[in-house]
Formats: sequence, structure tokens, C-alpha cells
Amino acid sequence: MSVTATMSRKADYPGLLTSTGDAWHYLDSAATAQKPQAVIDAMTRALGADYATVHRGVYARSAEMTLAYEAARRRVAAFVGGKEEELVFTRGATEAINLVAATWGEVNVGAGDRIMLSQLEHHSNIVPWQMLAERKGAHIDVCPLTDDGRIDLDALASMLTSEHRLVALAHVSNVLGSVLDVERASELAHGVGAKILIDGCQAVPRLPVDVAVLGCDFYVFSAHKLYGPTGIGALWARAEILDAMPPYQGGGAMIDKVTFAKTTYAPPPQRFEAGTPAITEAVAFGAACDYVSAIGLEAIHAHESALVAQTRAALGAMNDVMLFGPEDSAGIVSFAIDGIHPHDLGTILDEENVAIRAGHHCAQPLMDHLGVPATARASFGLYSDEADVAALIRGIERTKRIFG
Amino acid sequence: MSVTATMSRKADYPGLLTSTGDAWHYLDSAATAQKPQAVIDAMTRALGADYATVHRGVYARSAEMTLAYEAARRRVAAFVGGKEEELVFTRGATEAINLVAATWGEVNVGAGDRIMLSQLEHHSNIVPWQMLAERKGAHIDVCPLTDDGRIDLDALASMLTSEHRLVALAHVSNVLGSVLDVERASELAHGVGAKILIDGCQAVPRLPVDVAVLGCDFYVFSAHKLYGPTGIGALWARAEILDAMPPYQGGGAMIDKVTFAKTTYAPPPQRFEAGTPAITEAVAFGAACDYVSAIGLEAIHAHESALVAQTRAALGAMNDVMLFGPEDSAGIVSFAIDGIHPHDLGTILDEENVAIRAGHHCAQPLMDHLGVPATARASFGLYSDEADVAALIRGIERTKRIFG
Repeated sequence: MSVTATMSRKADYPGLLTSTGDAWHYLDSAATAQKPQAVIDAMTRALGADYATVHRGVYARSAEMTLAYEAARRRVAAFVGGKEEELVFTRGATEAINLVAATWGEVNVGAGDRIMLSQLEHHSNIVPWQMLAERKGAHIDVCPLTDDGRIDLDALASMLTSEHRLVALAHVSNVLGSVLDVERASELAHGVGAKILIDGCQAVPRLPVDVAVLGCDFYVFSAHKLYGPTGIGALWARAEILDAMPPYQGGGAMIDKVTFAKTTYAPPPQRFEAGTPAITEAVAFGAACDYVSAIGLEAIHAHESALVAQTRAALGAMNDVMLFGPEDSAGIVSFAIDGIHPHDLGTILDEENVAIRAGHHCAQPLMDHLGVPATARASFGLYSDEADVAALIRGIERTKRIFG
Repeated sequence: MSVTATMSRKADYPGLLTSTGDAWHYLDSAATAQKPQAVIDAMTRALGADYATVHRGVYARSAEMTLAYEAARRRVAAFVGGKEEELVFTRGATEAINLVAATWGEVNVGAGDRIMLSQLEHHSNIVPWQMLAERKGAHIDVCPLTDDGRIDLDALASMLTSEHRLVALAHVSNVLGSVLDVERASELAHGVGAKILIDGCQAVPRLPVDVAVLGCDFYVFSAHKLYGPTGIGALWARAEILDAMPPYQGGGAMIDKVTFAKTTYAPPPQRFEAGTPAITEAVAFGAACDYVSAIGLEAIHAHESALVAQTRAALGAMNDVMLFGPEDSAGIVSFAIDGIHPHDLGTILDEENVAIRAGHHCAQPLMDHLGVPATARASFGLYSDEADVAALIRGIERTKRIFG
């Protein structure tokens, strides 16, 4: 499969070698992606020769860092088709969802209102809404899945009512890799007057994303799954929605004027960025967007799809393996092997320098639905290649011999 | 002054050179500190050869990163004399204060209750309490300052009542450098049954801090002012207080068990760390603590005090300069020059490769108290030396000639 061979970019990634210099078959990119040298270098420069604070310095270095920080905001916004004034830097996707729940939710969700989630959501797209619903006396509804593990939009259409204020769904399932038809979901939500928030964590590294085409109201994602640094993520929201939201955290940089009698707040996005921001992380986040865009998400998606197809074919040929999720999963393959606990599989694979995830993947309600306590999950990145798939399959065969 | 000469450590700091390789006289360390190579290297390794997620991987690299992350928590906790289970990683000090306001405050502050702040607090230690007070119908009181710019603890003693639930004060003023007698403030707060939160942002890089000696209930600080990375800070709180606090943000890692019917939460500190944490930032934060501890805060404090004394003596000899704050300011000198706006001073100094801060320093109520819209502020780090002070004084003299 030539696409796989030409796409291998392992040389860019210092994290893809073991401590003894061997190849590390890293198949946990859905948890967090390894970082290309370009991102590490951006961080090193920002912490070193370029370092200064932003927004407040009268000296040139601080002015330059402010330009770099705001350029990163523009870069990250453009990465999902948004405008800079619509892009709030957060600690990560989890904080972005909590921010929306605590600000937009505080104003727009009341007693008796309803919030629509799905059975496959990550805990980060469940717990903030549960906390809001409990505070407000609102109700959570759960959209079921199709047999092959997609959010069932026909069911969504029949369940949505005028009491729904918000629909919050994953663009790509972190367990199953199933891809949501966001355009249709947005139309359904808007059809009953609800807003729609999309958890894009697993989508942005795997699919071209354009919020204008998707039609959603909020789009959240983290940098660390997009080959960028930890400690930063993004909330994109429509300008008019963001503008009407009260502040989240109070502090420096988010205010207009502070007195003990009355404090007034800055416009978005500054209103939502209290305190010294994650300056060097923002710069490196922008560098990650540059890196990924230079390769192109169409190519990355095709590449990961080919690896998913290879993996599903090889696992499907084993009669004791159960595959979860649809055939066209985006970069993620979850599975179970009869008689072998996923953790044991993960431990034995580790001895072969193959890293998979075993567990509930922060999606316990989905595990309940699948009827398993845990799955094994192999997930790909743009650096993954056929050698990684081959090592996974070899390792599974060895594990089966050990347990056989 | 030999202490100054022996303490110069500029060679450790790639940020202390201009883009043309000249010495950069960086006197804005109270805004953010430059990073030693040891911290940059820790970040580079964590993002590169050591990179993996924490807490959930079944493979060795993730287990090792989890150990490194938790070792960093232990290291940062020990840096202020605390225990690891009492140390929550936050985005920064601002988030730490907001976290306490939104969780401890939500449960413990009600209608008619009072919160005591001071006239010199940073916006980050004002706005979160204003937001809480507004939500709850509580009242904010403002402790005045002494003539030389310290929080007036005699006034505090006379103002505190049994209605006060919380006292929240800066350990070291970010404008004046004045140092709070935290032990006495803690006794006064506890004497009326209130808890006390200390904003330690400017203290941890300048003074030895031991929460057991200080007697406070909450202590917050950021990494980036302590020679560490951006995007991370810490909340230390007494174990029994932390244990009784409800969660802040919902998501992965902070839960015990999630179902749509009921979600239960993890014990502290995990309860307060939703989502993938700032992994590499935590590791680099620990490295910053190691670096600072190896030099020693007694030595750093003595060094900065000598530089403050030199600066105040040189500025005090100019009859058109007004000095703010006490003689024994910790590492920070705020001043004004008759007829020269601080911003103009900052701009001209920048031409001489001298970086100071000019503005309200996120302390507008203190500016109102001082009767100025802004001050010029020179602040020192452990890498500052007599050459920086000399460059500042030379630059001020030149500015006065230009404006004269």
C-alpha cells in the first residue's frame, strides 16, 4: 500500500524510539499524539531566546511575543475554519466544555430544560453537563447508537424536542472511531431551536474540519492530540454566542476596569482568558497546525483509513476476535479477544515495543452499552505505518499462544 | 557587593540575550521569569524521547511518565512545605484562586457573609471573589495599607468579624514588593473562624515558603514566575479542606465511576484535575523547583535585596523620582518620575536593552490608592546583577535628558 510507505514520517518524531533506540510501535495516538521536532523546536525557542510575557510589556520582546501569541490564535482558528475573535485558548478540550457549561449553560439552561448527549461520549462531554443539569434541575437525554457504533441520527431526530437547549456530541468516537455527520446533527439541533457543541478532539487530527460547513455552534479540541503540546486546547464558538456569554474565571487580562465597587469585562476572546496565558504552548500549538496542514488532512485521513482497513482485515480473520465500531472508523480500532483481558494483552504487547490502550477509555457508559468492562484499542497517527500494524498482529498472535 | 557578582547566573538563560547577542537587561521578572536551560531541557525531553500520557497507559513509557508527573507533584508540594495529596496542578495561580472560589466558596460562603481582601491585591485575587460575592450576596471588605505600602495588620485585626469566612491576601505585592507577615495574618483570620488564602506568586521565587510555618489554609502560585513553564500553577490546600471541596471541572481522570444515572468523583488531588493534565509542564515545573532549590531561596532573597537597596539608593538620590513601597521590598521597585509617563520611560529604556514594566500591573485599586494611573516597575530575578541596575539608572538619566 504505497500511501502508507510514502506517508511514514517517523524520523520527525524523537518520541517514536525506545530508550534503547529501537522502533516503538506507538498505537495510542487517540490518547495523545507524539510531537514532531518542529513543535518541540517551537516550544524550545519560545521558552528560550524568544521568551517574554504577552499583552502588557512596553518592550519589543513582549510586543513580539504578543504578535506570536495572537498569530497562533489566528492559525488555530483558521485550522477549523474559524475567525480569531471566535477562538478562546483553554487548558484543553475538557476545560473548553466546562467553560461552555458554566457560562453559556448558566444563562441558557434552566429547570425542566433538556440536554442531549449520546451513548458514546467521553466523560468530558458527559460530566460537565451532569453537573450543570444537577445545578439547574435540567434533564440529560442519551441518543442511542446504531448497531455498528454510530450515533443514531434517526433516533436523534425523533427524540429532540423544543425543550432541548443543547446537543453535545463527539465528532469522532474516541473508542470506536465512528464519524458523526455533523451537518445533519446541526440541522436537527437547530430545527428544535437547540445549540450544538461538537467535541472535535479525535476529529481534528484525522479529518478536514470547517465549522462553517459543519454548521455547529461550539467546537472544542485539544492541542496534545493534534501533535501539539499539553496544557492547551481551544474553544471555537460563533461570535454572537461568545459575545453574550458571561465570564468564566476572573483575573488579569480578562477585565476592562477593576474597582472594588464594580468590575467590567473585556470583549471575547480575552474575557475568557484570565491570567497569564499558556504562552509558549499557544506558539507550539500554532506550529502543530502548520505541520499538520503542510501534510494535509485529506492525505492523513486516507493514510489512517488504509491502516484501519489493514488492521480490521487482519483481526477480522481471527475467529476469536470481536471488532467494535464501523468499517470506516477514523484511525481507531477497538477490539476484544476471547479469554484474554485487554490489560493482559496490553502488557504483553508492551514487551514487544507495541503500545496500545486497554481500559474504558473514559467512556464507561459506552462500555456498559458494549457489555464489556474494557476494550483493547489501537489508534493511529500520521506517523503510523504498516510495520506498526504488523508488530501489533505479531504481538497478538504471540499473546494468544501464551494464553492458549 | 560580592553577593551580586557571585550570584550572576545569566549563562544559564538563553532568554537573557537580545536577538543580536547583546546583554538584555531584563527587569520584568515579576511579570514572568526567564527560563534556565535545565527547565527548557526538561520540557524538550518530556515532549520528545520521554513523551506519553499519564495514569491510563498499560505500557512502560506511560507508567514512567506517570511516575515523573507524580514526582513533580511531590517536588512542587515539598517546595512550599506541603504534601503531595494536598497539591493540585492548575493552569496557573489565577485558576487556583478561581477554583477555590467556585468550590470551597460555593459551599462555605453565603448571603451576608464577608470576604476580606486588601487594597494591594492583584486583579486575580479580587475578581474571583467579586464574582462569588455577587453570586452569593456576600460582601467584600478591603484592608487598607500602611504609609509605606504594607497590608495594615492592625487594621485587619480591628476589621475582622465572625461574619468573615475568608481572608485572601498577597504574600508579596506584585507592585510594591512589600512582604506580608503571613503568620500573623493567619492567626488573625483563624481568630474569627475565617480561612485564609495566600497568593504566593511573587513570594515563591523570592522567599523560603513553608505552609506549615505560615499557618495558612490555601497557598497558590504559578510556575512561570518561578523560572518554570507557562500553562501550569499550583493550589496547595490543607488535606481536610481539599477533601471536603466539591469538584470544579468535570471530565476524565477526576471521576470514580460515570453512568448517566449517577457519577461519583475521585479523591483529591485527582478530583480537581479533569482531563489530560499539563504533563510536560508539570515535569518542567518540578525541574524549576530543583533548580531554584539548588541555589537556595535564602541566597536568592539576599541577592535580590541587595539589588533593591542599590536601585532604591540610586533612584532616591534623584530629586524628581518618587519611590513606592517599603525599603525592604522583596525584589520589586515601583517608582514614578516627575513629568515622564512610565510608558515613555519604558519605551526609551527598551532602546537601551532595558526591559521594565509600565502600567497598572493588574492592580488598578492600588493605583487608585497611590493616586497614579501607572507606575514604572523594575523587578529582579536570581539572574539579575549590578550591570542590570547600572543600565537601568543610565537609561533613566538619558530619558530625563530627553524630556528635560
